[in-house]
Amino acid sequence: MRKKIVVLMILLLCIGFSLFAQEGEYTPSDALDMIWLFLGASLVFIMQAGFAMVETGLTRAKNSTNIVMKNLMDFCLGAIVYWAIGWGLMYGKNALGGLIGASDFFKAPMDGGRDAANFYRDWFFQVVFAATSATIVSGAMAERTQFKSYLIYTCFISAIIYPISGHWIWGGGWLSELGFHDFAGSTVVHSVGGWAALMGAIVIGPRIGKYIKSPDGKTSVKAFPGHSIPLAMLGVFLLWFGWYGFNGASTLSGSSPDIARVCVTTTLAASAGTIGALFTSWIWFKKPDASMSMNGALAGLVAITAPCGVVSPGASVVIGLIGGILVVLAVEFIDKVLKIDDPVGASSVHLVCGIFGTLAVGIWGNVEGTAVGLLHGGGFHQLGAQILGVISVGAWAAATSFILFKIIKAITGLRVSPKEEMIGLDITEHKAEAYTGFQIFSNM
Amino acid sequence: MRKKIVVLMILLLCIGFSLFAQEGEYTPSDALDMIWLFLGASLVFIMQAGFAMVETGLTRAKNSTNIVMKNLMDFCLGAIVYWAIGWGLMYGKNALGGLIGASDFFKAPMDGGRDAANFYRDWFFQVVFAATSATIVSGAMAERTQFKSYLIYTCFISAIIYPISGHWIWGGGWLSELGFHDFAGSTVVHSVGGWAALMGAIVIGPRIGKYIKSPDGKTSVKAFPGHSIPLAMLGVFLLWFGWYGFNGASTLSGSSPDIARVCVTTTLAASAGTIGALFTSWIWFKKPDASMSMNGALAGLVAITAPCGVVSPGASVVIGLIGGILVVLAVEFIDKVLKIDDPVGASSVHLVCGIFGTLAVGIWGNVEGTAVGLLHGGGFHQLGAQILGVISVGAWAAATSFILFKIIKAITGLRVSPKEEMIGLDITEHKAEAYTGFQIFSNM
Amino acid sequence: MRKKIVVLMILLLCIGFSLFAQEGEYTPSDALDMIWLFLGASLVFIMQAGFAMVETGLTRAKNSTNIVMKNLMDFCLGAIVYWAIGWGLMYGKNALGGLIGASDFFKAPMDGGRDAANFYRDWFFQVVFAATSATIVSGAMAERTQFKSYLIYTCFISAIIYPISGHWIWGGGWLSELGFHDFAGSTVVHSVGGWAALMGAIVIGPRIGKYIKSPDGKTSVKAFPGHSIPLAMLGVFLLWFGWYGFNGASTLSGSSPDIARVCVTTTLAASAGTIGALFTSWIWFKKPDASMSMNGALAGLVAITAPCGVVSPGASVVIGLIGGILVVLAVEFIDKVLKIDDPVGASSVHLVCGIFGTLAVGIWGNVEGTAVGLLHGGGFHQLGAQILGVISVGAWAAATSFILFKIIKAITGLRVSPKEEMIGLDITEHKAEAYTGFQIFSNM
Repeated sequence: MRKKIVVLMILLLCIGFSLFAQEGEYTPSDALDMIWLFLGASLVFIMQAGFAMVETGLTRAKNSTNIVMKNLMDFCLGAIVYWAIGWGLMYGKNALGGLIGASDFFKAPMDGGRDAANFYRDWFFQVVFAATSATIVSGAMAERTQFKSYLIYTCFISAIIYPISGHWIWGGGWLSELGFHDFAGSTVVHSVGGWAALMGAIVIGPRIGKYIKSPDGKTSVKAFPGHSIPLAMLGVFLLWFGWYGFNGASTLSGSSPDIARVCVTTTLAASAGTIGALFTSWIWFKKPDASMSMNGALAGLVAITAPCGVVSPGASVVIGLIGGILVVLAVEFIDKVLKIDDPVGASSVHLVCGIFGTLAVGIWGNVEGTAVGLLHGGGFHQLGAQILGVISVGAWAAATSFILFKIIKAITGLRVSPKEEMIGLDITEHKAEAYTGFQIFSNM
Repeated sequence: MRKKIVVLMILLLCIGFSLFAQEGEYTPSDALDMIWLFLGASLVFIMQAGFAMVETGLTRAKNSTNIVMKNLMDFCLGAIVYWAIGWGLMYGKNALGGLIGASDFFKAPMDGGRDAANFYRDWFFQVVFAATSATIVSGAMAERTQFKSYLIYTCFISAIIYPISGHWIWGGGWLSELGFHDFAGSTVVHSVGGWAALMGAIVIGPRIGKYIKSPDGKTSVKAFPGHSIPLAMLGVFLLWFGWYGFNGASTLSGSSPDIARVCVTTTLAASAGTIGALFTSWIWFKKPDASMSMNGALAGLVAITAPCGVVSPGASVVIGLIGGILVVLAVEFIDKVLKIDDPVGASSVHLVCGIFGTLAVGIWGNVEGTAVGLLHGGGFHQLGAQILGVISVGAWAAATSFILFKIIKAITGLRVSPKEEMIGLDITEHKAEAYTGFQIFSNM
Repeated sequence: MRKKIVVLMILLLCIGFSLFAQEGEYTPSDALDMIWLFLGASLVFIMQAGFAMVETGLTRAKNSTNIVMKNLMDFCLGAIVYWAIGWGLMYGKNALGGLIGASDFFKAPMDGGRDAANFYRDWFFQVVFAATSATIVSGAMAERTQFKSYLIYTCFISAIIYPISGHWIWGGGWLSELGFHDFAGSTVVHSVGGWAALMGAIVIGPRIGKYIKSPDGKTSVKAFPGHSIPLAMLGVFLLWFGWYGFNGASTLSGSSPDIARVCVTTTLAASAGTIGALFTSWIWFKKPDASMSMNGALAGLVAITAPCGVVSPGASVVIGLIGGILVVLAVEFIDKVLKIDDPVGASSVHLVCGIFGTLAVGIWGNVEGTAVGLLHGGGFHQLGAQILGVISVGAWAAATSFILFKIIKAITGLRVSPKEEMIGLDITEHKAEAYTGFQIFSNM
């Protein structure tokens, strides 16, 4: 009897809270969501440092100021344009039949109410995702891109390319209505950035000396080792750390019990990805390769980003492991077979594993009502939606970024001169060495 | 009807909670505040790593152990003296007519009650701010200060100089009563540290070879480039990351909807500051300068620290942009015109932009009942309070730190010998190189 | 009268919540615990980056890829085996009279209920502790261990050695029943890792050139300075930062007011440890030594890990200070007297200070009902339990890791060849330099 009264009281209380909420009161549950998304977004922000360290560590010392400057500026320019334009295209009210959002540009409510607070919260959480997508490209076009051209590109991806396909999936657009599932952004963030990276690497062409044709017609492929493996490793750890915010806080609610599953699958997939890449490189190249292992960690993280909320720990190990193996194959294929010069393997990590992770939802998905994959009796329904999403977002991101790079190339030029490339972009673009005082062999 | 009953129940419940709270029960709201301030403080703590990386990256390799040791020790000594003395001066009961606090020295409650918990929580959140203020100085006096003299200085700023002006503003002292508004510490933290930095740089004088008079009476100014731009950039990202705790958690309440606005204005101002400094350096010096851009990010962050809770996103972009332009002008003015040698630009970032940010509250402030600035119909009332605060805190911090450095100089000496300076402080002060095994040109 | 009604209502409400909770509902209190432990675990994760930077910074450039690869792989392998086997041994149902746990291997609940969520949450929080214990060893065996042998070792410590003694203390095993108190793991994590580190260093023997016997029978001890003090310092800051999660979130509840005390004692002990080591090295060696100071910070952190929740701020200063002095003595004793070559001082930091911190609970413990030490009238009761724990866990960890290293040595070999050691493990084990392009003296 007493229990029934208590239960009744709590029910009444919950109704009361929700009534209040409808009327715009800021509830304890809002407060929890606020600090959850705030801290999650801060974690995602530090991924910028992770990208900067990975990319500078895996490229040559003579270009290391240039690459960290690109990482800094793509966030800064991206944040401004994403506030001005991007948010409205991504989360504004549906226009053109759900193809874009079209409201809330330059949004700036000045009241202290619940709606304003939640808008600011959501914007902060979204801008760091947009910046992640943009910064993927800097590594793929490293060591040969004009600084000013990169700044132009980054404005367009953050203002237009990323937000529009983002709208289709997270902004209530047409793909979300078809049941496409991308929990934290294997497609929305990583494959969009990955397509742009691949298109950029294709349009700008390989670095001088990368592919050399010998008189007998054979092409030899040169590797340019990075200048600081410890910094690159630091970057991997920072990215992994930030990824807990990326995947974890993508529950969007601090009250969601799913947070726990997400962090476990993220941890296991990243671990398995590293192991997969380590042993693949060990068996194939006869050495436990450091840069492959680091890319393996990132591959596992990218691959689990879409399915992290709907798969079992065992499946996350399998997904990560496949991601780790895949990234080694992709790096070799893109480098040696396609002869596309992506200095840090960005397209292998973010595009190839982003696609794989998106499809993984349709294979290993295991949560009734959210995403049920092939292996758990879901048939081809979910997998079909995932394939459709991969293709349509891929077509959008590849086409627009290809055209964008072509236009930039035609108007301002995309690439530095051969002489500048040989000297190094730190001196030629920024008039300063990165490591003043150190004896460095700049032709390395 | 049902709704009225529910509302009544919730009202009763709230009253009940507040009654409990008055009687010292630890409420769910306290728990939220606890984890919010704890995590915020942890984020502010990592700013120490950010300062260490920025300062070591922007100075020469031969002094890089010395500078990170200063960063480590100013936190460690600062924490102990801030517990013993500083907290009591800053947050103790008003004495001398509100000029200082004077109670709670060596505070150490051993019960598990609400008051004890909240004291420990607040102390932890405040000590990391005190340490931020102290560590600003190490960069400005880099490459020529005796290690032991720096340790003496740092005890005094954390125990006495910072807490006393802090008391005026955050401890319930006289400036807070006049309506001075400094949300997260543009003045309390940054300009106090910035004044000490400027005074330190003046008292100790420029590095050998920095300003060289030619026979015709003209002075040439030499630049000493930093030894690792990637590490400096890492430091900027870590500082920015930590700043989310610095500004965000300065709401002091995890239930505050203002957290969201703060993080958006912080992000936009930092971004705009970077852009402002980048383009100023690009136009002025014909190069997109890396160290100016990094200082621009910090300038935007310092400038938005006071007004982050009371301005619109648009205003935060303007404030950041001006901060970023201002920092380039200030670095050049202090270096070339005043001929004060501040190796990392600490006074330009923290003092100049700290003052600007404090005044910005009186110009762009836009929240009724908190701070309404000139541009929003507030007249000169708020701006007047801000100017008064800038002047009075400036007079206090500049005078006391100038005297302090003069006394240290007279008693123990402030500066290493010219020979030690040429060799580098790592060898002479710490008997060890920072980069053993690397070929380094130590005269660089 | 009104107050009584309200109090009654709240009581009923609390009863209601707990009834709900018993029936498996996910309560607001669960949600707070979830984000608390999630963010705490993320902070502990970044300690992996801290270890990597400290260890690589304090060793030679020619082995720096190798050491960060070990740090990466011990987490990755450890996470998988800790999910498969370790968790079950540590937190499974008591078996063999409380000596081990034995259930929940490969645990993977797929429902969305409270129990599943809390399991995943707890696993995530525990796996980062297991990885911390494992990674301690990599520094002690640096610069001479075969990569594959290290991988074998790390699987065993994470799957078996760490979980079993962990079960005794945190898993409801026999030591917890005797009143042994180890709040966040001075013994469970640090001394277990420290014992393994010491045994590893003994079994593998010193680096070539470390101890050289002269014809007159005297042994000279050579120091091999680390290759990057700035990176090592960054590591210390990252470890300290992560330690706030390590100690703070070990309350296991986001609603615990003890969080606050923990963060204050952690801050003060780390600061005092640094000061203790700095001045000990300054007095003894006539120089304020950087690597000793950094180890002092870690020593203070390790020492306060067990008692952080039950001591006063003053006691934490004393404990940290002793820890900081102790670590200098221990480094010298192990290096010069015992002639055990531990390149980064891992056993001095984690084993010696881990033991000291565990005993400190029995000396300075000051919280009635939890741990009352000698100095607060608790008699020898608590100290006795602590000593018993130190001895029994020490016997377990030392014996099993000694045997493990001996077996690995016999089967696959533990050490690289002298020639490989001279060339450096980056080239010989991973076929790549860490700092391509830099002029490095590899015999340093």
